Amino acid sequence: MEKTQRIVIVGGSAAGPKAAAKARRLDQNAEIIILQKEKDLSMASCGYPYYIGGTFDNRNMLLSTPTGVIRDPKFYLNAKGIDARICTEVLRIDRTSKKLEFRNTETDETGILEYSKLILATGSVSKLPPVRGIDLEGVTTLRSMDDAEYLRKIRDEKKIKKAVVIGGGLIGLETCEALHLAGIEITVVELLPQILTFLDWEMAMLSENHIKSKNANVITGNGVAEFIGDENNKLKAVKLSNGIELDCELAVIAIGVRPNGKLAKDAGLEIGVTGGIVVNEYMQTSDPSIYAAGDCVELTNSVTGRKVFAPLGDLANLEGRVAGENAAIGNAVTFQGTLQTGICKIFDFKAGFTGVTERLAKELNMDTVSVINASPDKPAFMGGKLLVTKLIADRASGKILGAQCVGPGDVNRQIATWAVAIKGKLTVEDMVDADLPYAPPFSLAIDHSITTAHLLQNKMKGRLKGISAKEVKTKADNKENVYILDVRGSDEYEQMRLGIGETLIPLGGLRKRLEELPADRNTEIICYCKISLRGYEAALIIENAGYTNVKVMEGGIMAWPYTREK
Amino acid sequence: MEKTQRIVIVGGSAAGPKAAAKARRLDQNAEIIILQKEKDLSMASCGYPYYIGGTFDNRNMLLSTPTGVIRDPKFYLNAKGIDARICTEVLRIDRTSKKLEFRNTETDETGILEYSKLILATGSVSKLPPVRGIDLEGVTTLRSMDDAEYLRKIRDEKKIKKAVVIGGGLIGLETCEALHLAGIEITVVELLPQILTFLDWEMAMLSENHIKSKNANVITGNGVAEFIGDENNKLKAVKLSNGIELDCELAVIAIGVRPNGKLAKDAGLEIGVTGGIVVNEYMQTSDPSIYAAGDCVELTNSVTGRKVFAPLGDLANLEGRVAGENAAIGNAVTFQGTLQTGICKIFDFKAGFTGVTERLAKELNMDTVSVINASPDKPAFMGGKLLVTKLIADRASGKILGAQCVGPGDVNRQIATWAVAIKGKLTVEDMVDADLPYAPPFSLAIDHSITTAHLLQNKMKGRLKGISAKEVKTKADNKENVYILDVRGSDEYEQMRLGIGETLIPLGGLRKRLEELPADRNTEIICYCKISLRGYEAALIIENAGYTNVKVMEGGIMAWPYTREK
Repeated sequence: MEKTQRIVIVGGSAAGPKAAAKARRLDQNAEIIILQKEKDLSMASCGYPYYIGGTFDNRNMLLSTPTGVIRDPKFYLNAKGIDARICTEVLRIDRTSKKLEFRNTETDETGILEYSKLILATGSVSKLPPVRGIDLEGVTTLRSMDDAEYLRKIRDEKKIKKAVVIGGGLIGLETCEALHLAGIEITVVELLPQILTFLDWEMAMLSENHIKSKNANVITGNGVAEFIGDENNKLKAVKLSNGIELDCELAVIAIGVRPNGKLAKDAGLEIGVTGGIVVNEYMQTSDPSIYAAGDCVELTNSVTGRKVFAPLGDLANLEGRVAGENAAIGNAVTFQGTLQTGICKIFDFKAGFTGVTERLAKELNMDTVSVINASPDKPAFMGGKLLVTKLIADRASGKILGAQCVGPGDVNRQIATWAVAIKGKLTVEDMVDADLPYAPPFSLAIDHSITTAHLLQNKMKGRLKGISAKEVKTKADNKENVYILDVRGSDEYEQMRLGIGETLIPLGGLRKRLEELPADRNTEIICYCKISLRGYEAALIIENAGYTNVKVMEGGIMAWPYTREK
Repeated sequence: MEKTQRIVIVGGSAAGPKAAAKARRLDQNAEIIILQKEKDLSMASCGYPYYIGGTFDNRNMLLSTPTGVIRDPKFYLNAKGIDARICTEVLRIDRTSKKLEFRNTETDETGILEYSKLILATGSVSKLPPVRGIDLEGVTTLRSMDDAEYLRKIRDEKKIKKAVVIGGGLIGLETCEALHLAGIEITVVELLPQILTFLDWEMAMLSENHIKSKNANVITGNGVAEFIGDENNKLKAVKLSNGIELDCELAVIAIGVRPNGKLAKDAGLEIGVTGGIVVNEYMQTSDPSIYAAGDCVELTNSVTGRKVFAPLGDLANLEGRVAGENAAIGNAVTFQGTLQTGICKIFDFKAGFTGVTERLAKELNMDTVSVINASPDKPAFMGGKLLVTKLIADRASGKILGAQCVGPGDVNRQIATWAVAIKGKLTVEDMVDADLPYAPPFSLAIDHSITTAHLLQNKMKGRLKGISAKEVKTKADNKENVYILDVRGSDEYEQMRLGIGETLIPLGGLRKRLEELPADRNTEIICYCKISLRGYEAALIIENAGYTNVKVMEGGIMAWPYTREK
């Protein structure tokens, strides 16, 4: 069969193989070559933490098709008709002659390859802190299959007692859980004031509190100053910026990644503000013969219109599919941008997010409203577990702009729901009567996502006057003249309470005990309960009694991000 | 406090209490009265099967708030300021004088109550087959708390050995599972040719096969002709239309419900084609002073525009919220219609649906395209479980009109995703790069919903020429001149195969074995594999070799609705 064109793909992890497979499906006659620097192909790198933590034991599962066939060069050749060359590093691209130079990393042999179309899927590289001791034995990242095997070996050998994870993002926290499962005492160190920076502060705090409840340590607002080694150049401690030294035998650096755009930059392709390769909606670079996909590119956030770096495995695949098709048959399909949706499991907790945070919205001067809702995912009789959601919408139009959800409940469904709602440009009003799947094993009769929309609708209509836990804490700390009212039952109060100077009047007795409230009808009154549904009803009763400044603490005790008295 | 208006609500299960609570929040001074015929209030009736099956043991959990307070009249009065009167049956409504007559079912006393606004939430009543023996001991429905307690007692006593469930809908199958868990031998009898009639046939068959794999019996296309009793008027068998007698000591009738519109009809309110009370978008009946919500009303399907009866607990609550607000403050909010979304757990299987089926689309002469996709919900290394989805879209616009998903995997997230996509009027093209939450504990890198969109996109572009399992079976049965090609590995073929005359050529060897295919390039060739991804790639290779009539069996072996050879 005559080869009509040669499509060369640089990179064989996620976006590259996807682009190659899509190109093959659309052009059975093209010559399709993957050049992969590593010795493995199609590594499910998002699965590394679960291999390290012992969810499964066979490392080949990370490299296999669902039916258990390893995706090696032979597989690519026979099943896909793709020439996948491993241990092959691309050194440079000559765009004028449409050639690239490569080197075999095992034999050191070099060669030249012509291309009709080139797809760059060069991924990302780990950021490293610019400090001493980074080369010590016991200091590692978690980027490669080799890293994963190194950490898995540490788990299996059970020799290491203490480890520090540098970075409180997705990979950092997944690594924290994996090593904790291995019986290692863990401290997570995060330079910024909070972990999980794609969440707003209070949502990150709920996650941090959960991690701490598992006896893992979290230190925020502190960076690494030095890795300290012993006489054998083995790590013995991590020194932090504030001088504290954390004894440990292992440190995993997970402070994030940056786009691997070197090859593109050297070839004179346009590089964006984020360091990623600039592509248009066809995933085409500034050279029409060269496409790019995956962690090496710069994307557009669909909500803000901003250029962003979004190194996520699902996006890499979706971008690769677009790049593969367009490289094979000409620009036919587009990639419509990202919401930067993500999710992460942390022990028994999940944290998910899509669209913008309130913090980002403020930075961008977007006029938004938000609400926090706490409620179970299912009925109590089905063992429902807590969900706490923060929903953010445009103040004028009500268009949903972002959602964050954390808790032990089914965060997955919540974030999928909001991600599609944002994609569909739906408003809060659209979502208040969304017809979602309901049966007791799966949700409440009114799903948590819908009650969240109800709360935000109530807030936008001025019916629910919300106040954040953070503001309440500040008022309590400053001993402001504010009357804080817990309207739960006495038994609930005995079991758990904030202890910030609140008064307990159970909702059921409130109508008869209104005279116990401050005489001054202008006193600021803040109501709450476990999740602030009763708190809301209390506020309405109190307002109706003539009080003019009544608020509801959003999410109630379940969303309280600080320690409690009890 | 002066009572400015009196809102009377007839019905205290789901829609009624929700309407009452919403009305109270918006009007602290109104007199709000619930009249409830039964002795319980706010029963979580969707939870009955799980109480019967033993998921939980305390029946009061069905009647309690999340914090464990029973929602009795005292609770309504103290916490909500609502006068909830149980054992109170409304006999008639006099719309001219805005009065209703009620009777206490315990004391038989009657009374008259005036209303400013009336909300009818009279629910539904069980359909009963018009056959002999329906009053025998051992024949029951599952509608009331009493029914639930009766069946729970049967479970606890462990005396009954055999039971028949009449009806293969949601309640029927949930009851089947509950009684099966109690160790009772179960047969489900369904009059129509399939169970779960809100699914297309092949999706229902996959569900039926799962039920049978659990050693529960399913008989379709057969109704009940008679309940046969012994000399003590105790059920001893169910006789079916075809004469078969099924020995059993218990029969649960679950052939569906119809709107309880009697009170409304007698009062001269407009009743719709479905038998439900006609309401406008404000949930207002033909009498402006009377609203209605819940199972007693007729709704509009948002996709088809048709009037439908949709007796679902989540909708009842959402409708109640709208009726409550509008009754309290005048028409302010609307209910935007239903997608008739639903979900059901059946043993280790789930079945979910939203929007239209292909069958309904055909009945309505809608020009649609559809595809079936089978793939796991998560990576194999995370213990991913199968999902099979059928997605239906408008042929011209690509607008998504319906989705059905069955399998042991996370059906919940899939149906939530599609329900919001339909609400947002999204197209297949919109969904091919949806940015959904991904991490290995939660989904595949390309989520099942997105690969489903990819398949339908490929089909709409003419790249994937799909054929249904049903058509393949017919061709095989009729010994048509068709070449059926299984492209899985030999080991997979040894473990499991269809046995419909197929030839095995593993995909990896196909390019070299093309000469084994029929010489006539116009022969119809049907390719498949486990889930038909490899089958698709095989079809492209074969087409490229000059074959003109190559198809892919959608969903592969995993979506095969018939028995297999192996």
